Parts: sequence; C-alpha cells; structure tokens
Amino acid sequence: MNPKNSDRRRFLKNGAALAGLAVGASASALPLAAEPALEKVDELHEYGERSHFVGSVRTGSINNPERRLKDEPVAFGLRSPLQDQVGMITPASLHFIVSHGFEPPDIDPQEHRLLIHGMVDRPLIFTVDELKRLPSVSRFHFIECHGNSTTAGPGGPARIAPNATAQDTHGFTSCSQWTGVPLSLLLKEAGVQKGATWIMAEGADASKHSKSFPLAKAMDDAIVAYGQNGEPVRPEQGFPLRLVVPGWQGINNVKWLRRIDLVDEPYMFMMETSRYPSLKLDGKSRWFEFELGPKSVITRPSGGHHLPVRGYYEISGLAWSGGGAIRRVEVSTDGGRTWKDAQIHDPVAKKAHTRFSIPWNWDGEEALLHSRCTDDQGTVQPTVAEVAKLWGTDVEFLRKTSLIVGDFNAIQPWKVNRDGSVQNALF
Amino acid sequence: MNPKNSDRRRFLKNGAALAGLAVGASASALPLAAEPALEKVDELHEYGERSHFVGSVRTGSINNPERRLKDEPVAFGLRSPLQDQVGMITPASLHFIVSHGFEPPDIDPQEHRLLIHGMVDRPLIFTVDELKRLPSVSRFHFIECHGNSTTAGPGGPARIAPNATAQDTHGFTSCSQWTGVPLSLLLKEAGVQKGATWIMAEGADASKHSKSFPLAKAMDDAIVAYGQNGEPVRPEQGFPLRLVVPGWQGINNVKWLRRIDLVDEPYMFMMETSRYPSLKLDGKSRWFEFELGPKSVITRPSGGHHLPVRGYYEISGLAWSGGGAIRRVEVSTDGGRTWKDAQIHDPVAKKAHTRFSIPWNWDGEEALLHSRCTDDQGTVQPTVAEVAKLWGTDVEFLRKTSLIVGDFNAIQPWKVNRDGSVQNALF
Repeated sequence: MNPKNSDRRRFLKNGAALAGLAVGASASALPLAAEPALEKVDELHEYGERSHFVGSVRTGSINNPERRLKDEPVAFGLRSPLQDQVGMITPASLHFIVSHGFEPPDIDPQEHRLLIHGMVDRPLIFTVDELKRLPSVSRFHFIECHGNSTTAGPGGPARIAPNATAQDTHGFTSCSQWTGVPLSLLLKEAGVQKGATWIMAEGADASKHSKSFPLAKAMDDAIVAYGQNGEPVRPEQGFPLRLVVPGWQGINNVKWLRRIDLVDEPYMFMMETSRYPSLKLDGKSRWFEFELGPKSVITRPSGGHHLPVRGYYEISGLAWSGGGAIRRVEVSTDGGRTWKDAQIHDPVAKKAHTRFSIPWNWDGEEALLHSRCTDDQGTVQPTVAEVAKLWGTDVEFLRKTSLIVGDFNAIQPWKVNRDGSVQNALF
Repeated sequence: MNPKNSDRRRFLKNGAALAGLAVGASASALPLAAEPALEKVDELHEYGERSHFVGSVRTGSINNPERRLKDEPVAFGLRSPLQDQVGMITPASLHFIVSHGFEPPDIDPQEHRLLIHGMVDRPLIFTVDELKRLPSVSRFHFIECHGNSTTAGPGGPARIAPNATAQDTHGFTSCSQWTGVPLSLLLKEAGVQKGATWIMAEGADASKHSKSFPLAKAMDDAIVAYGQNGEPVRPEQGFPLRLVVPGWQGINNVKWLRRIDLVDEPYMFMMETSRYPSLKLDGKSRWFEFELGPKSVITRPSGGHHLPVRGYYEISGLAWSGGGAIRRVEVSTDGGRTWKDAQIHDPVAKKAHTRFSIPWNWDGEEALLHSRCTDDQGTVQPTVAEVAKLWGTDVEFLRKTSLIVGDFNAIQPWKVNRDGSVQNALF
C-alpha cells in the first residue's frame, strides 16, 4: 500500500473526533446550498503533486559555499532537465534559474508596486491588481541565459564532459506561456517624451538587478508578466511581476520588476559593460548584444540515455530562435553528412521552444546525431566551425577556452555507441 | 525575513559539519569536470514551489464521509479555480479531478503494462518505456466532465447558488498539453480485425474504471498519453498512462490505462447504461452521448470577484468545443441584448480551451455579462431556453430539477451589482 494513502486515511480518522467542530470551517471555502453534510476532501488534493516515482530535478551548484555559509551572497545556476521533458512547455517547477547572488525575495503582491518614470509626461505607479485589469496577452516565449551551452557559470565545465546530459549542455533555456500587459501599453499611458531611446528595468531583489535595453524593443513585444503557465509567476521567476523580453538574452528579462526608467542612453551597469560582454580573440569585447540566434538540441536520445535494443526510435528535440518562429529543423544521424527534414509540431510560436521529431531505425552501429534549425528570417543554426569563424578564431581556441563566449548556438552532436550508450560529442 | 529562507540557511549551516562526508554524494547527480569544489544548491530549488501568497486551490467535497472513515470507497470531485487562471493552460496541480470512489493508485511505471487484445491479429503488451520510443504527438486538449455546470456530483448544489464562483459553475474542465502515442498507431500495429467496431478501455485503479466507445474515435484522434504540460502525467490524472479522447465526455479519458479490448459492441458498463445517461422529461434516457458542445465562461470578472472602482476592465474568459476549434466568441454586457466580438488569443487549437478577451468600461451601473461561442462546425453555444427545448422541457423544469442533466453548455450570466460585487445570475 502506498504509505501516502495510508497516512491520508489516518489523518481522516484523527479528524473524525473533531468532525462536529470542524465541519463549518472545513467547508467554508465552498458556498453550499442545502444538502446532506459534506466533508472537505483531503488537503493533499487541493494542489496536486507529481508521482514519487518521478525524480527529474533541476541540477547545478553554487560557487563559494563558504561564503554562503556566512550568509553572504553567491551566484547560483540551476539547469532544467531537458532530457526528460516532452512537448514544448517547461513545467514552472523546473524552469531554469540564474541568480546573481541572492535567494528569491518573498514579496507580498498586495504591497508590490511598479513605477514608470524618467522621460515620460506622466510618471505612473501600478499595483499588481491594477495591471490585471488592463488588456492582457498570453504568449509562449522561451527565456535563455546567454551563457547557456557555454562553460560559464556554476557547474559549467560539465558542459564539455563526455558524460554531459542535455541538461548540462542546454539546460539554461525554458519555455512558458507568459500572461501580462504589453509594456508598450504602459509606456503609451505614461507618454514617452521625445529623445527617450533606452529603458532601464530594475528588480526588487536584494541585488537590485538592473538592465538597459533600447526603447524600440520595449515598444515591440515586451510583456510585464504576472502569469506563467496559467498561474502566478513563480517566486524563482520573479513573482509577482517579471519583464519578458522575447528572444533577447535572459538577463534582460528582469525578475521582481519594480521600476522602469525612460532614458536617452544605456545605464552602463557592470552586468552590461564588464561581466556579460564576450571577450574576442583580439582582446575586444562584443557588448550590448541582445538577440539570441537559432538553436536546437536533440533531447531524446541525448547524453546519459541508453538504447536498450536495435530498432525503432523517435528522435525528438527542441528548437528556438530569438529571430522569430522556427521554420525548419533537419536531423542527421551520420554526423552531418546527410540530413532529413524533421516534423515540426504545433504550436509553432515566435520566439518559443518548438518540438520536432523524426523516426529513426537504429542498426546497432555507432551513430552521430545532429539537429540544425532555420528560423523564419532564414537564419540557419551554425556549426562549431562557423561559430569560431564569427569570433575570428578556430575550433581549437573554443575548446581550449572551454567555450567561454556568449550566445553559443552551435549544432550539438550526440554520439550513440554500439552498447546503446549516448554521449556528448562536441569535442 | 521570509521564514523559509531562514530555515534554508539553518539547513546549510547544519549541513556544514557534514560537508566533508556528504560532498561526494550531494554532487553525484552532476557529472563534473575538474573545477574548484562546488556544493549543491539547496534542495528547495530542485523542484520549485509557488509563492505562499498564492492560495488558489481545487475545491469540492466527498459524499458519505462516514463511509470514508471506514476506508470504504466514496466518490469525490474537485473543481479547478478557473476564476484565478490566466492563459489557456491549466496547471497540472490544479487540474480538476472526478473520482468514482478511490484514491489514485500508486503505480510504479517500470511495472506498468498496457495490453491491447480482443479482435486483433496480434495482441500486444507495451511497457511505458516502449511507448516512449514510438512516434509521439503533443496536443492541447481540454478534458471536461459531462456533469460540469450541472448540480450532479459532490458539491453540486453550489452551482446554482447566487454566490457561485466560476470554479463552482464550470470547474470540472481543464486543459493541458498532452504528449503520447496516437492510439491509432498502436491499433494498426496490433491489426484490427474485420467486425471490430468498439473499444473498451480499462484503468488500473481499484474500481477498474472502464468505458466503451466507437473504434472510429480511437482511430481518429485518441492519444495514449504519458506526458502532461511537459512532465509525466500526474497521479491524479492517470500516471503513468492516460487515454485522452479529445472533445468527448471526460469519463472516456480513462486514467491509469492498462487494457484496451477490441469488440463488436459496447460493454454496457453501469457507468454507461444507468449512471451517466441523462433522464429526459418523458422518462427516457439519452445514452452513449460522447461529443461535448461549444461552451464558454467569463472567468474575469466572475462570481465572487469585486470591481473596486468604475472604469476600465478587461473581460476575459475561456471557450471550448468538442466539435473542433473555437471560431468566434461574442460578449454582451447587457444581458444578451447587444453583442460584441471578443478577441480570440493564440493558440487556437482544436478541442482545447481558448482564451478570449474584450475591453469594457464599467459605468458603475448594474450589468449582466454573457459570453457565447461558436465552433468551426458553425455550432453556437445555446441559451438556457434553447437547452431546455433540446430536452423537450422548459427553463422552470431545469431550475426545479437543479440542472441534473448532462452536457449543460448554456450561456453563463454574471451580474455586476452597483457595489461592484459579481454574482451568479443563472436563475
């Protein structure tokens, strides 16, 4: 017998002695017309849980645990278990997290405010309830850390290990249906003044994470989101408000959003001038990069999976692009010599994860699985060599520097061995 | 300070004494390349939780609590809090539940099997892992109990109370992205014999819930689902396998699916001959009804909500139809005298919840909010009077019998009072 069920029954038995006293309170959530006495169903069913047989979790690590033990802030990063996920929605409980040093703040939504000020005609302050009365949109969008697929950040070296999983290599991306108010609507309400060209968004976390980006993007498709996959945005994702900046580097998607300042130039925060820009071989940096390129990864089979027998398998994965919708995904099982078009599954939304799949008959020999996507701008996901060329370097340099560059969107190879094991074959 | 954060830090401090011993085990989930020692992030972040400020839960009740206290099976029903939800996905934790008498079974997915037999050339047995190797589909579909919006089942009378919420009136419907194998593929693999016209699907729960339906539907769009919103189907929804029968009465969507029998006539289970068929005024029953009609409900503002001030509000709700995709939703704020077309939000999927919205300026006077949807077959959601006519009766009869008919999909009216309160105005 399931111990949980057994506990539940005991709870009910203990509850019986109190039944006369408790029935009014326990039924209070539900307005009842005349009917025989009812008892509330167990609290365990009020907000359900997954099976205890399912163990898929976010993984990662923190730097400097000794600092953490002294209650000092340390960065941590937790990757989403892509190799276990199906469809194109990331469960909110498994959405990746990158923290620049603090635990998520514990915000009372009744107390929270969003201020819009700076170069506007009418500075505005909104409560969360006021935002919920305004015209809303619900859109699927991925959020991806620009360090995804690199070795930057906590746990990063696992990315290039032969036993890396899809979680290790690509787990800093997730996709949700975000619900909220178009930022453009709020800015129009405030009245943007002539000369304003950038916005700065600030969070209510202890580190006051802040980020500048061009006003044009704010007016295009940014969302002040209060909903994620049908329920309130999770604390780890910015409860009660998160700025969603579709297709742009994750760092722009400011969590616990409390302030937007309209300005005529970027703020030049440390995160946008010294830490996030990627260093090139010539010593110069690329900075103020925003849009993420087309990218895909086969999630099944992928590193750590095991094919038990020869025969039929579905190859399945995710593709996304900051440039728009995914138009095409090709899959190779021979290391890129020949390619076949994969099936793209609905819904195909702009700047959202898109599920693809293709049938495959494994003959028991070594195989090298690649996926390559193209977005609706016609941009094609590059090879590692093509990424190196963009950086004015070569693959060997990328390998030696352990991919400490941003926006690494090269084709991910998985090697299927004769024993059915699957491993990372990037280098 | 958030007590949770405080606990978390204490946990880390206690853990410090064991660090030398525990670090190997705690990092074992993550394959690490050479790097300075890392400590795993707190377990609290492995699988995230919602904010403790969010209290939205399923509500309902069980019949015959005294039987339950003796460990005897009793039916229970839990409705989803539609009035709090945004977008078109129901969070898995809040998906409605109807149980015919037992707690969800605690199934080990490694031990579970699906048998397909009866009038087939090759009876087949599948493990869950074998099913996951087959071609998959991921599709948005609602599941709705045919007793939704009636007073049948536990807590039912609340449905017609003036203080009913959208959860009370419409909470027995939910929408998920279901991932699994098309049932047609499995049946073709088994080889359906000539003369087979029905299938029977059986669950692995203690009550062995079973249901017959025509083979044509099984070959059309039914799914043997192992995934729900990106993760494994929840235990309350049939873990590890649920049959999804899009657009048909919820009872066909057999949970904990373990057996499918190909037959040449329905099994005539109690649930399909005596309990589920709806009694008509002339004493006859409608039975073997399957497809659910077009239906919509305004979820915001809805019963129990309160409009704090005059002015702008977004009216927002959900529409769905067993007949196909939603093509149109109209909204009236004057009790059905005049109608305006609402905006329909992407994605608009067949047999799935579809979010609609329309702007509204509340002048502070009484208002009567209606929504009416039309599906892509051209079928229009009926008024209460039209539903009564279908049943060969009148509205007064429906009121007196407290709507104990199935598939009640009439237009739902919400009354906005001058004090801003919103209430159920069905009768």
